[in-house]
Amino acid sequence: MQAEILCVGTELLMGQILNTNAQFIARKLSALGIDLKYQQVVGDNEERLEAAYRLALSRSDIVITSGGLGPTVDDITKRVLARVAGRKMVVFPEAEEMVRRRFAEYHRNMTPNNRNQAMFAEGTRILVNHHGTAPGAIVPLDNGCEVIHLPGPPSELEPMFEESVMPYLEKRSEHVIVSRYIRIFGMGESEVDMRMKDLEAGSNPTLSPYCSLGEVMLRATASAGTHEKAEEILTPLVKEVRRRIGHVIYEISGTDHGGLGETAVTELKARGWTVAVSEDATGGLLASALAEIPESEQIFRGGMVFPCGAGICRDTAEERARGIREQMRTDLGISVVGTAVEAGDVPAGTVYLGISTINGTRVKQVCLSGGRDRIRKLAVKHALSMILEELG
Amino acid sequence: MQAEILCVGTELLMGQILNTNAQFIARKLSALGIDLKYQQVVGDNEERLEAAYRLALSRSDIVITSGGLGPTVDDITKRVLARVAGRKMVVFPEAEEMVRRRFAEYHRNMTPNNRNQAMFAEGTRILVNHHGTAPGAIVPLDNGCEVIHLPGPPSELEPMFEESVMPYLEKRSEHVIVSRYIRIFGMGESEVDMRMKDLEAGSNPTLSPYCSLGEVMLRATASAGTHEKAEEILTPLVKEVRRRIGHVIYEISGTDHGGLGETAVTELKARGWTVAVSEDATGGLLASALAEIPESEQIFRGGMVFPCGAGICRDTAEERARGIREQMRTDLGISVVGTAVEAGDVPAGTVYLGISTINGTRVKQVCLSGGRDRIRKLAVKHALSMILEELG
Repeated sequence: MQAEILCVGTELLMGQILNTNAQFIARKLSALGIDLKYQQVVGDNEERLEAAYRLALSRSDIVITSGGLGPTVDDITKRVLARVAGRKMVVFPEAEEMVRRRFAEYHRNMTPNNRNQAMFAEGTRILVNHHGTAPGAIVPLDNGCEVIHLPGPPSELEPMFEESVMPYLEKRSEHVIVSRYIRIFGMGESEVDMRMKDLEAGSNPTLSPYCSLGEVMLRATASAGTHEKAEEILTPLVKEVRRRIGHVIYEISGTDHGGLGETAVTELKARGWTVAVSEDATGGLLASALAEIPESEQIFRGGMVFPCGAGICRDTAEERARGIREQMRTDLGISVVGTAVEAGDVPAGTVYLGISTINGTRVKQVCLSGGRDRIRKLAVKHALSMILEELG
Repeated sequence: MQAEILCVGTELLMGQILNTNAQFIARKLSALGIDLKYQQVVGDNEERLEAAYRLALSRSDIVITSGGLGPTVDDITKRVLARVAGRKMVVFPEAEEMVRRRFAEYHRNMTPNNRNQAMFAEGTRILVNHHGTAPGAIVPLDNGCEVIHLPGPPSELEPMFEESVMPYLEKRSEHVIVSRYIRIFGMGESEVDMRMKDLEAGSNPTLSPYCSLGEVMLRATASAGTHEKAEEILTPLVKEVRRRIGHVIYEISGTDHGGLGETAVTELKARGWTVAVSEDATGGLLASALAEIPESEQIFRGGMVFPCGAGICRDTAEERARGIREQMRTDLGISVVGTAVEAGDVPAGTVYLGISTINGTRVKQVCLSGGRDRIRKLAVKHALSMILEELG
């Protein structure tokens, strides 16, 4: 089963928006074991969209479109497909009801052109949009291909994909796909890659690396006739990864939501431990990395931000970690003392991290490289990782 | 002149990386007045890449590729083009010298396969890579089309585009393009759009909106034979935009780098004013928004982060703004007091902003909607905007 993504929107061609939809869909398809071979982006132009559809349908089994489902004349995604497929556009009463309900909820007037949002090619299956007015759709074509229409805004596309498209594709594939997301901090991308090379060459189970600044996530995926069989295929691979690089794995979970911040907050909550921070080089970014995690209110007690690069030394890191813990009466205090830019004769990236609990205070030095932004973000990740270390 | 972007890399099809290159190039082409009609993404597969080249060259004058210039067998972008164009691949001594120099700088051994990075189709013009080992290239083809090869990592592609490709395309276009970037805060995207609709319909000068959370940027662009003539076309448009919505414009500049944080730091530096922050709902994000701006060390003195949602009221905002200014001995103190989540009977998004200078302290209330993340980010933008208001 080969899939293709077709994003429709002049705003993508103007660079007005970043195409996060393509990455989101690509990741999900990959986790479903569906081959994605092509992505296309075209503007709101009937002729070019028609050519893009014809090309996609000539080489792919599933074409997933994003964008162009709205009520205006520029929203041409559904209409052009109907023409290509030789189908009539008709109003779907259940879709009309969805649109109407959404407008009522938003206390907005439904202007007549919004009826366009309820029109699809004959023979379409409607997908509910819980986060916007435009329903999505699955359009099975006569040649066996399927086109899946999704709305453009990521806040609508992402939940629609998870709620409606994933279960549909899972069912269609006749295989059960199971994944484990293995999160790594403290080993570079290229070293992880080197150590996993042979495992990444496999076809079932598969192992794929996803890298972000300072972190690597490995996705292990198995496909089988039943859930149990898939788990059976997956388990030895995860075990082998753990055997090779277990010391740098901080989480293994069944979902791809997460990261150091999420894991730190989860672990703190599990212990019922509160935390306060004291930071200079990171200028509020560490506090923010904790505060942004849902329900962190339960454990995050705030802290202090100092000017960058003042008083860089091991002792300052120790004093500040202990000081903030005592001042804020938390179970854990963490400090970042360093500089993200050259400060006198101290090179950029010189950072001390302090952590303090009732059991004592310890300090670790890291030397980070790269620009200001990279140093700040890496320092935050090291601090979060140190919290996890402390919690065991 | 019609352009097309062709991104090469299986990691894009797996969703392992976000395609920021496509947006970056799209924005730059748009500012250059070059029509971008298509984007394609294909994996590291010779057959599919060849088909993608043939399609692109059949419909576009300029094809810009990103990725696949490295030394491994998976790096096929240059080789496949040479085959499509019927050209021999040859080593370019100046490119080899560039690669060699970069390896020496990085104190890394240059393995033999790295010579591939110096091989291009005959008749190629080499582009220097100041931030990585793989040189880029401009390949003029016999049919008048041009292919521009850029490296995949954004940290290499972006400067190469700005340093080498922009000047080349500017020269090639025979027109001078001048742009103004008009930054707006305090008016919604749809209202800006409504008020600018007629101006956005023009073709020279053009006016295009770029929206990010809570902010709108309008890019006004004119094209003419000389710089003076372009300015002459542009000035009335910018004046008209200013006449219509001048009260919500916080910056008009000649570059697309910027935002509320940059402008706030620039204005504070211009006055020689220091600032300290006190925040709860935003949990460090306001401090971080200032600290992340280059050279903010000169004016940012840090501050306090309080737990979210404790003691929400107008008086707290006033006390904290004054308090942090006095405690940190800064010219300006700013506070965010509120909650990003429901807190007892206070709804999420209830936020008081306080600002204090030697001339006094004032507080403003805003009611923000959306999820936790959106509320936090909007509150930070309101705070930065309040700093700009205070500075006049």
